Amino acid sequence: MTVLDGATRLHLILGDPIAQVKSPGGVTRCFAARGRNAAMLPVHVTAAEFDDFVRGASLARNLDGLTITVPHKFAAARHCATLTERAQLLGAVNVMRRNPDRSWHGDMLDGAGMVAAIRACGGEPAGRHALLVGAGGAGTAIAQALLEAGVASLALHDADPARAEALLARLRPVSGGVPLRGLAAAEPEGCTLVVNATPAGMRPEDPLPVPPERLRADMFVADVITAPEVTPLLAAARALGCGTSTGVDMFGAQVELIADFLLGGA
Amino acid sequence: MTVLDGATRLHLILGDPIAQVKSPGGVTRCFAARGRNAAMLPVHVTAAEFDDFVRGASLARNLDGLTITVPHKFAAARHCATLTERAQLLGAVNVMRRNPDRSWHGDMLDGAGMVAAIRACGGEPAGRHALLVGAGGAGTAIAQALLEAGVASLALHDADPARAEALLARLRPVSGGVPLRGLAAAEPEGCTLVVNATPAGMRPEDPLPVPPERLRADMFVADVITAPEVTPLLAAARALGCGTSTGVDMFGAQVELIADFLLGGA
Repeated sequence: MTVLDGATRLHLILGDPIAQVKSPGGVTRCFAARGRNAAMLPVHVTAAEFDDFVRGASLARNLDGLTITVPHKFAAARHCATLTERAQLLGAVNVMRRNPDRSWHGDMLDGAGMVAAIRACGGEPAGRHALLVGAGGAGTAIAQALLEAGVASLALHDADPARAEALLARLRPVSGGVPLRGLAAAEPEGCTLVVNATPAGMRPEDPLPVPPERLRADMFVADVITAPEVTPLLAAARALGCGTSTGVDMFGAQVELIADFLLGGA
Repeated sequence: MTVLDGATRLHLILGDPIAQVKSPGGVTRCFAARGRNAAMLPVHVTAAEFDDFVRGASLARNLDGLTITVPHKFAAARHCATLTERAQLLGAVNVMRRNPDRSWHGDMLDGAGMVAAIRACGGEPAGRHALLVGAGGAGTAIAQALLEAGVASLALHDADPARAEALLARLRPVSGGVPLRGLAAAEPEGCTLVVNATPAGMRPEDPLPVPPERLRADMFVADVITAPEVTPLLAAARALGCGTSTGVDMFGAQVELIADFLLGGA
């Protein structure tokens, strides 16, 4: 653990609620492992007060970075003078660092964290036919990241078909000709990468996001849920011999990506 | 060291410059020793941006306390809805905690830290005739605290006689009849407590704030300077057999007082 002193550089994670986040410990340990005197602190700020908080806090000369969680990812993008291409496409950021003129530069790493976790667990997405379940905030970022990672096709299911269609419409201009389609049901047939980006699996009574009897051993199955670490979907996949990655894997991968970004891509 | 997590309660120390402050480590360790998940972080904020920073940062729901250092102690008092009597008298605060309605309550502990250090080192101020050298920010707070601690009289010397007179004029209404006098020179004769509240002694070439040949063994000698820990004044006093307290003792005492105040006087 970094020993705090007067020279400690500050990074904040902003959310409402905030007590559940794990980045203060994870990212601060990451800073220390890289030999940096820097810490990430949690800040509980409401949506109504978010803009005024960011304007005030940005005046701190030793505030180098912000991490953004629910519900502020879209509001935060408006505080950025510059955005990465993917953050611009998604209209949302989860990390912000200073430009040389002290304005904010934003990126969205939620999808990259999932792709990095899939890769770390042996499920390279490039060339795979992917089924993504869930077109909310996490699903949107993951859909973009899967296309960026080179999937051969992307099928998308959401309980709200209009939400799935809206996301597909935003992705088509940047898909580079990769086939995109909406599915009325979460049918994994023909896919070799299945990703859950819905909350289904957090509670024991939740239905599985994908019917487990439709999984096959050549599918790699990934989940965004961190608790339980092994969701019923992942347990079913592992029983079949599928490769899997968990929400905890995704969080771990994202901590590294967040530290990379906040320290300036070093 | 507190392990940072999403539930960590925040306290900030605000100054310009800030890298030299030791409270982030000291107060955070104090919080941990009391079993609190709380941390104190340094914030570098300029005088021009101080008010906007405080207004913005105050919106954070998990920001429980502020510690204030140079040059913000007077500006900070204006952000307090309520002040202790001594902070009101001094027009300055170095600590702020939340009232039940989330407004700020301020106190000034600079003087109390000195008195606590003197007591801890065996120099109880009550009943002593005190000579205080220096009527700046630290000296002002210490003068008030010495009166509050029950000194029998207080003599004050400052290189700027008008500054000394101005402080005496502010103290007279609250002195409760204790004799106060300004001295044209730092002459300790007749005093049994000598306090240096000037920077003299930080650099080897500084003149001593009190002529060492005028010290006597029955005097207790205290200094605000933390580096060197034993100033030439304290070295001379110790050589005579005087009791002494250092700036490091004062800082240590103040860390405890700051933690007490920020945690609600608990």
